[in-house]
Amino acid sequence: MAETDKELLKELYRRITEISLLHSCAAVLEWDERTYMPPGGGNHRAEQKALLSGMVHEKFTAPQIGDLLKKAEDSLSGAAADSPDRVNIRELRRQYDKLVKVPKSLVEELEKTTTLAEQAWVEARRKSDTAPFLPWLEKIINLKRRYAEAIGYKTEPYDALLDDYEPGETAANLKQVLENLRLPLVEMIRAIADSDRKPKSEILQRNFPLDKQEIIGRLAASAIGFDMDSGRLDVTTHPFCIGIGPGDTRITTRYNANHFGQAFFGILHETGHALYDQGLDKSYFGLPMGESVSLGIHESQSRLWENVVGRSLAFWQYFYPWVQKLFYDSLKDVSLEEFYFAINEVRPSFIRVEADEATYNLHILVRFEIEHAIFSGDLKTADIPAVWNDKFKKYLGVEPPDDRQGCLQDVHWGAGLIGYFPTYTLGNLYSAQFFAAAKKELTDLEKQFASGQFSDLLNWLREKIHRHGQRYRAAELVVKVTGEPLNSRYLLEYLRGKYAPLYGI
Amino acid sequence: MAETDKELLKELYRRITEISLLHSCAAVLEWDERTYMPPGGGNHRAEQKALLSGMVHEKFTAPQIGDLLKKAEDSLSGAAADSPDRVNIRELRRQYDKLVKVPKSLVEELEKTTTLAEQAWVEARRKSDTAPFLPWLEKIINLKRRYAEAIGYKTEPYDALLDDYEPGETAANLKQVLENLRLPLVEMIRAIADSDRKPKSEILQRNFPLDKQEIIGRLAASAIGFDMDSGRLDVTTHPFCIGIGPGDTRITTRYNANHFGQAFFGILHETGHALYDQGLDKSYFGLPMGESVSLGIHESQSRLWENVVGRSLAFWQYFYPWVQKLFYDSLKDVSLEEFYFAINEVRPSFIRVEADEATYNLHILVRFEIEHAIFSGDLKTADIPAVWNDKFKKYLGVEPPDDRQGCLQDVHWGAGLIGYFPTYTLGNLYSAQFFAAAKKELTDLEKQFASGQFSDLLNWLREKIHRHGQRYRAAELVVKVTGEPLNSRYLLEYLRGKYAPLYGI
Repeated sequence: MAETDKELLKELYRRITEISLLHSCAAVLEWDERTYMPPGGGNHRAEQKALLSGMVHEKFTAPQIGDLLKKAEDSLSGAAADSPDRVNIRELRRQYDKLVKVPKSLVEELEKTTTLAEQAWVEARRKSDTAPFLPWLEKIINLKRRYAEAIGYKTEPYDALLDDYEPGETAANLKQVLENLRLPLVEMIRAIADSDRKPKSEILQRNFPLDKQEIIGRLAASAIGFDMDSGRLDVTTHPFCIGIGPGDTRITTRYNANHFGQAFFGILHETGHALYDQGLDKSYFGLPMGESVSLGIHESQSRLWENVVGRSLAFWQYFYPWVQKLFYDSLKDVSLEEFYFAINEVRPSFIRVEADEATYNLHILVRFEIEHAIFSGDLKTADIPAVWNDKFKKYLGVEPPDDRQGCLQDVHWGAGLIGYFPTYTLGNLYSAQFFAAAKKELTDLEKQFASGQFSDLLNWLREKIHRHGQRYRAAELVVKVTGEPLNSRYLLEYLRGKYAPLYGI
Repeated sequence: MAETDKELLKELYRRITEISLLHSCAAVLEWDERTYMPPGGGNHRAEQKALLSGMVHEKFTAPQIGDLLKKAEDSLSGAAADSPDRVNIRELRRQYDKLVKVPKSLVEELEKTTTLAEQAWVEARRKSDTAPFLPWLEKIINLKRRYAEAIGYKTEPYDALLDDYEPGETAANLKQVLENLRLPLVEMIRAIADSDRKPKSEILQRNFPLDKQEIIGRLAASAIGFDMDSGRLDVTTHPFCIGIGPGDTRITTRYNANHFGQAFFGILHETGHALYDQGLDKSYFGLPMGESVSLGIHESQSRLWENVVGRSLAFWQYFYPWVQKLFYDSLKDVSLEEFYFAINEVRPSFIRVEADEATYNLHILVRFEIEHAIFSGDLKTADIPAVWNDKFKKYLGVEPPDDRQGCLQDVHWGAGLIGYFPTYTLGNLYSAQFFAAAKKELTDLEKQFASGQFSDLLNWLREKIHRHGQRYRAAELVVKVTGEPLNSRYLLEYLRGKYAPLYGI
């Protein structure tokens, strides 16, 4: 590369890194708002955030960025496709084009509409009455259609929405993958329901003092590799993980004194996200090579640690003695096997965030099928409640008693997050496929877990996934890591492997 | 005002308020850094802060701000001097001129030098060896002289430094005011030392569990008017109060299980700052009319609540029963009178931040006399340790055993804060004079305190001081509020009124 080209690239990186730095200031404000900010500070915080996001948008869509990008593309045309500079420029181009293609008026209308729609959703959910929310959803759908047309798509408009959360993913592919899950899962869940083996689920609903839950949560997060000197664990209402910058990744949870699992597995989940964040290449901070691939890949890391590792027998062979000792009054009469069965109970339920590993994906399937049909014009919004309940009955064998526990339970649609739900199940699929590959390459993983050793697995994930940032898009990464494209059989095998011995199915 | 003038003023305000909003984002980062940020986040935080402060500086010194200011001044020439717009423009002009007058190279050199000087100070203090720190101080003094020349001053260069912290204050005036304190304070302290009445100071050094200290600290902060819905109390190493924006003012403290007073009076002190902040006119957020007058006036509010109210007998007539009940094991044998005497002990000491109300001002006098002489060229830095110890002996009757407990104890000089120390004593002077005026205008203040009523005093402060923002400069405000210029006799009378009955002097 010529000297002037190097200078131009450096200048582009300088600008982009500065924008990311500014964006990371907003992350501190976000974390603060959701953990410690006093209620009186809400209005001012909204103004602060609007200012920062406006500045980030303005700086990123500046014509100079477009010029520099163009020049960088020309000068890099000879470099390898997966060389860091090519990757950075490819992804910056993708982001830049999206941002400049969407008219400012549409962005503002979407923002205004979703703010009001969220309020309407809160009210609709409170009253468990979907009708008043539907006009808002219609409006959002229409705006999102305009959005999809503005940025373009591969085959159908819904692909454009998917691309925001899972770049490169398509409705057609997703439909196939999810469809492959449907029947086997429905059958598995039916067999489990018919089994006369049942865990003692009340075990988890005994008394678990909050301070001890925090101790064991921190212990587990540290044990699987979370660096507490470069992060924090705090309490919040809706748990999240947020990366503030190199050396500062924070997780949150909420404790329920009458449920062991909510905080514990929540912490493992957020720790999974955090480990990905802490494993990114710090020297690329602010550039695509230092950023995570997609929501689905991010979710694969959280699900892997929460479920594949965190609900495994080997994990609890190590952890249960600690937990039993700490909560002696509540667990003294509970064996490891009983505890393990309880944390792996499968029971069809109405609320997604409380669903078990098997039924969870059917919750997502219902949402995907509905939002895809709505967006394609094959379904009217007025029919959502009936279709929702019908699908629940068909897939899960249960029917929500009201819309609050049905189609109104999640904020996503009201917040304009259409095309987002599938990333949850993609995360589950990726996690099972990644772990199957890890088990092939690493020996004695279960023996390691049973003795509290998790570093081999973490290092493998760092080496295979984390350190690459956005070098590969999700579909390509899956092939690189596991040797084949995303295949739903890994998740099904994993689930069968767990539930067959437990439920005798 | 013509329509176009109104538009111009509006545009100026829009820009300034946006800059303040950006600055307030940095306040969140600052608070976070000093309370919850994990150690690993330090480097990234430094970059975030540098970015924000650079952007604030750049936006504020933009030529458009200068143009808009000039036009606003022209259009407002007919308005009353203390009308909100005139006040805003007057103060913005003051800030703008300062910022544009100082060459960027000087700002950068000051920043670089003080960063290194602080490190040198930490090392010098650790070894209690002043010599290696002196070249840094020399360098800072020289840079500060250039700074003073760049921005200009009334009579002598030191005035320019004072103006950064106490706008309008001059060395000549300060010298007079402090000089009036010196002899009476030295005599008062000597008489107290000679008195055979002594408080039982060990009372305060018994066991005071941290969780209970937090309870009583929150109770006291709320009782005097701190709005916990619009603020927080957290733990830190070096306590501070920070205003993040309307509805969000945060205080911090540190607890010592073997000292009752450190956290309790620290909380009252920071609450005093916070009450000022919470009393500013929110509709002027980001403009001088919505900002505090000066460090001295800010300190007057903290000292007033910490000392004048918080160490008064009436306050403890209300609070002591709570405190005694809460810390029953440690205080069951301690009467209100003994407790009150203990929290008002006067004892010459070496460390400023641990000094009592009487000796504190002599600590400041020593620093002011030395930094003023150094800056004026009348004293060589090499002579600081000897002069420091000599003055301590003359004013306080004690001589620091080493420089760590002498001239090396404070970070200020190494941080480039020259002209800052006097604002502490100005705060004490203002607080006594304000309270004397409040007592004249409000009836039964002491009776109110004794029954836990503090709102009359707070409302009076809000009405007389807080709500005006920077409408008046400190010297003018004192006259408006108390009917006369700053006069050291109020502080002396207040101290005599407290100590005469306690020590029988």
